[in-house]
Amino acid sequence: MNEIHPRLKLWLEKDGQIVMSDYRVRLLERIAESGSLSQAATGMNLSYRRAWGKVKELEENLGVRLVESEVGGAGGGHTTLSPTGLALVRAYRSFQDRMAATLQEAFETELAAITAGPSPETQEP
Amino acid sequence: MNEIHPRLKLWLEKDGQIVMSDYRVRLLERIAESGSLSQAATGMNLSYRRAWGKVKELEENLGVRLVESEVGGAGGGHTTLSPTGLALVRAYRSFQDRMAATLQEAFETELAAITAGPSPETQEP
Repeated sequence: MNEIHPRLKLWLEKDGQIVMSDYRVRLLERIAESGSLSQAATGMNLSYRRAWGKVKELEENLGVRLVESEVGGAGGGHTTLSPTGLALVRAYRSFQDRMAATLQEAFETELAAITAGPSPETQEP
Repeated sequence: MNEIHPRLKLWLEKDGQIVMSDYRVRLLERIAESGSLSQAATGMNLSYRRAWGKVKELEENLGVRLVESEVGGAGGGHTTLSPTGLALVRAYRSFQDRMAATLQEAFETELAAITAGPSPETQEP
């Protein structure tokens, strides 16, 4: 049982609905990085329409504005994160980092020995 | 943003394959509890064949025997966890418990304040 790695997926729920997740935070991060919902969508293999729908759904579920848009202009439109959106992305990343650190620690403590398997001499059939 | 709860899913990978997960551990636990693969399968809404396939796949990927079976007899067959299977289920449960405790803690520390949202007076549109 060598080379086993622990993995985790995180998300936030409200009334049984997903209101934030690793995937959704990646979308918001890409918006922050590129300043463009279109580029963020492409990077996630989403249509512009679908990416926009996801952002709007998050805003509705959370009851806050996550992005700020300027339509048109010389650059052909621009989307950035709102201060709340930015704060939420940062907080979620800290939450992920903390969980990732504990994941490795909990795996080493609880599972590493047992998943390393029996020694060759005593190996089960 | 009230009543938001953090959630997590855990699993173990080896060479990009899932070799254990919350779901798979539930199946093994049900086998341990009922002493019957058939009952365990029913409880998970799986066919007997599919449940058996999952167990065999885990055994192959991990390289250990997880269950012990007696075919036929007065009770019509019996499946229990092997000592290794039992130890693995217990270790995985400890791993889950530790992660669940940290999940709540990390959420409170990093996200609870921000997901509680702005106060009504300063609420965003």
